[in-house]
Amino acid sequence: MAIRPVLIDGAWRASNAAGTFRAENPATREPLADEYPVSAWTDCDAALTAAAAAHRELRLGSGEAIATFLERYAERIERRAAEIVDLAHLETAYPKSPRLADVELPRTTNQLRQAAAAARDGAWQRATIDRKLNIRSRHTSIGPVCVFGPNNFPLAFGSASGGDFAAAIAAGNPVIAKANTSHPGTTRLFAEEALQAVEGAGLPRATVQLLYRTSHEDGERLVSDPRVGATGYTGSRSAGLKLKVAADKAGKPIYLELSSVNPVVVLPGAIAERREKLVGEFLASVLMGTGQFCTNPGLVVVIDHDASRTFIAEVAARFTDAPTGTLLSVGVGKSLAAGVAKLKAAGAEVLAASTCSDADKRYCFPNTLLRTTAARFVADSELWQTELFGNASLFVVAKNEDEVGQVLDRLEGNLTGCIYSDTQGSDDALYDRLAPRLRPHVGRLLNDKMPTGVAVSPAMNHGGPYPATGHSGFTAVGLPAAMWRFAALECYDNVREHRLPAVLRDKNPTGMWRMIDGAWTQGDA
Amino acid sequence: MAIRPVLIDGAWRASNAAGTFRAENPATREPLADEYPVSAWTDCDAALTAAAAAHRELRLGSGEAIATFLERYAERIERRAAEIVDLAHLETAYPKSPRLADVELPRTTNQLRQAAAAARDGAWQRATIDRKLNIRSRHTSIGPVCVFGPNNFPLAFGSASGGDFAAAIAAGNPVIAKANTSHPGTTRLFAEEALQAVEGAGLPRATVQLLYRTSHEDGERLVSDPRVGATGYTGSRSAGLKLKVAADKAGKPIYLELSSVNPVVVLPGAIAERREKLVGEFLASVLMGTGQFCTNPGLVVVIDHDASRTFIAEVAARFTDAPTGTLLSVGVGKSLAAGVAKLKAAGAEVLAASTCSDADKRYCFPNTLLRTTAARFVADSELWQTELFGNASLFVVAKNEDEVGQVLDRLEGNLTGCIYSDTQGSDDALYDRLAPRLRPHVGRLLNDKMPTGVAVSPAMNHGGPYPATGHSGFTAVGLPAAMWRFAALECYDNVREHRLPAVLRDKNPTGMWRMIDGAWTQGDA
Repeated sequence: MAIRPVLIDGAWRASNAAGTFRAENPATREPLADEYPVSAWTDCDAALTAAAAAHRELRLGSGEAIATFLERYAERIERRAAEIVDLAHLETAYPKSPRLADVELPRTTNQLRQAAAAARDGAWQRATIDRKLNIRSRHTSIGPVCVFGPNNFPLAFGSASGGDFAAAIAAGNPVIAKANTSHPGTTRLFAEEALQAVEGAGLPRATVQLLYRTSHEDGERLVSDPRVGATGYTGSRSAGLKLKVAADKAGKPIYLELSSVNPVVVLPGAIAERREKLVGEFLASVLMGTGQFCTNPGLVVVIDHDASRTFIAEVAARFTDAPTGTLLSVGVGKSLAAGVAKLKAAGAEVLAASTCSDADKRYCFPNTLLRTTAARFVADSELWQTELFGNASLFVVAKNEDEVGQVLDRLEGNLTGCIYSDTQGSDDALYDRLAPRLRPHVGRLLNDKMPTGVAVSPAMNHGGPYPATGHSGFTAVGLPAAMWRFAALECYDNVREHRLPAVLRDKNPTGMWRMIDGAWTQGDA
Repeated sequence: MAIRPVLIDGAWRASNAAGTFRAENPATREPLADEYPVSAWTDCDAALTAAAAAHRELRLGSGEAIATFLERYAERIERRAAEIVDLAHLETAYPKSPRLADVELPRTTNQLRQAAAAARDGAWQRATIDRKLNIRSRHTSIGPVCVFGPNNFPLAFGSASGGDFAAAIAAGNPVIAKANTSHPGTTRLFAEEALQAVEGAGLPRATVQLLYRTSHEDGERLVSDPRVGATGYTGSRSAGLKLKVAADKAGKPIYLELSSVNPVVVLPGAIAERREKLVGEFLASVLMGTGQFCTNPGLVVVIDHDASRTFIAEVAARFTDAPTGTLLSVGVGKSLAAGVAKLKAAGAEVLAASTCSDADKRYCFPNTLLRTTAARFVADSELWQTELFGNASLFVVAKNEDEVGQVLDRLEGNLTGCIYSDTQGSDDALYDRLAPRLRPHVGRLLNDKMPTGVAVSPAMNHGGPYPATGHSGFTAVGLPAAMWRFAALECYDNVREHRLPAVLRDKNPTGMWRMIDGAWTQGDA
């Protein structure tokens, strides 16, 4: 079979390939039929040149054209949904329904439509007008954005379909998508539809481009190239930090979503009040998608007492009994096994492990529940925060409130942190003392709710302090906020009105929200 | 004389000094009397610990207390203005009036008061509420901020008094000020007043701390310390980039304002229409403060014709005749001389040079006007963009529009870019073709106005693409925008209302602007 072409400058063309690869079906460990290229630098170079030209053209275009593209693209995805879901299922082993067809695909098209609305509306630019001094500014596109999508959301975070893609495009930037190598086919189907929608909407043909894989060196060269505006990366910490070094050195913004253990503190009153319900909520959250979520609750902190021991025992029993899910790749399995082994070597007790053997044809690892003490955690907190990406979680048992506080003080940056408390107020005083110690370490603080749901809301923060992400001021989910990562601030000082971009002129025919002389208004300046 | 103490944790205490230094009077080249410490790491460490504790306390405090501090501080500065101006004059040789007393000091106190208003108002937090999903977010303080101020604005960009300081404090962050070593005494006077105001306003005593100097290694360790939230740096490119490497590696945001040649394009119609006026405007801008402005117009692009030759000749004559100003330090003079020598070696013609000799007791360099061709510029554009920080500027003469465009395409990131055009429209078509080629390279685009005025306006952008700054999405001047550099995004998901920060609760008693369900409002949620 021929090697699949790459998408550069509006054409599917043969890659200048330095090698090839195939994806695997995680449910069978067998390689899939299609062969994909590992691009040499000349592919990257051609994509960069085309993207830079596309950006010059997009700068002069309208938010309306971009919105049209995003909406048509969403429609096209829906028309091809069955094929996309089938291929994503083959490449990831995620269930077609409900996961891929009923949850992730609608989330993807909804996100694209929210991005379309933001691009059309224009308020994301935060147009700011000082009438007295005649100084006007707004955020606008930053330039071609490289998107490196993760393995665990082939649709909603896919390089050519997901959150970073939607945000970058809506802000007026061409995207160079680097497929996640675990699902190149799914990404290809998206890019095929994107290209059709680009042409239909009259956008520059290099608005969406696709490469499947490069060498590490070329990846680093890509994100630091002068033609690039910024990069969005979701994936492993080690690969992400290498890209960050390269991008930082070149002064190119790079937004990373790396790792997170997502601490959950369950206070005594909550356990006393609704233990069974909590067991169910935790189980559903921690084993969903075989635990392969950025916001998977990987660390649960409780205070030792009879009820919390019962809570843990009940969770453990359910862990053992729960079906063992399939993992995305051999790499995920190896990494999870290594993390569990590391914690066991450090003294973690294994409270539960479900069945999963090498006799299984699929990639899997037993549902694993670990326990350690707060004292141990505090003594080597970096080790105990090893991310267990997959179907495993660690309970940290504290003797008392003081030990819980010590654990919280030592947390690295996380995407989320949760505190469960009782509804009648018996935990309130404890909450008030502990929450301020958890808050600085997490991007999103939840009450009485597991962290795995990440709503596409303007108020969402899917971000957090380093090393959860590369910059605690930004979110990767939620519009228009996610677009600000891919935006530059542009100011016009004493510029004649007819030369201003439309959003900064006196008249505001579309009623866009703007900040004029210190007040938000939808009126004219 | 005793070594001056440092300000750590609310007390002026003896530094653990690794050495000492004195500032010089640039007008006499003589060292000033006071001896200042070069802090060893233990000083930095103590300041970091105190700042982290102060931040924990500030997080729980109110914007009102911070506003009170900033206002009292501004008042105290005004009461001590004469002493501050006298010492700044000794340390910088800037004229007391109008520069220091009538321009920079009022700008400084005005900026502090604008920061106070922003802290009190709270709208800078961009509170965002999704009522349906009960998800709420806001920007809030990021943690202790290290401020490295530049040599050229001892008051308005001073480490303990200027723009970065005001923005960091207003956003709720303690500041560790690292004095610019050319004006330690001025910075000390500010810190003395700041400490009094901190105590008067009841803020944590380590809200403002001051170190005078560290080794390069300790500076790098400081900006990358886990206790730090972020860093603001204004100064030389080489020192700034070293700090950036260290901060980036630790995942700590660092905002740099480095270098900028601030291109000015003067179109033919403008020269034909108002040549004399342009000569005057350019002269005033380029020689103001002996050219030691971040936004000094260091590169002027014109199309070769009789009128532009006359324009250049008239500028040259005025350059020769203008008094030669005093430079801030021996380093500024050396760096300027080296830059001019480099351009001369590359073929720049010297059109004008005023008088200044080593017989002068002061630091000075002749007002120097250079000329090159666009062809030469294009052939080695990096070299020709060597920043001449001081009283020098380079004219680039293009044969035609095409050559102007080629020069613009090769510009590095700049803070500003200007285009002068005639008022009757004869330059309009040319403007429309050239402006899009200038726009991506500059943070602020001006028409018919020199770039040296940087108004403290909400619409200002004192920022720009790398290497002018470290991130093109942010401004260092203008409130509240400058505060967003020193802010983290915090989200509350399903958090019970009484546990929310006041700005995210349903009631909005102060009428703060908030984004609720997609619309800006001053009402309740």
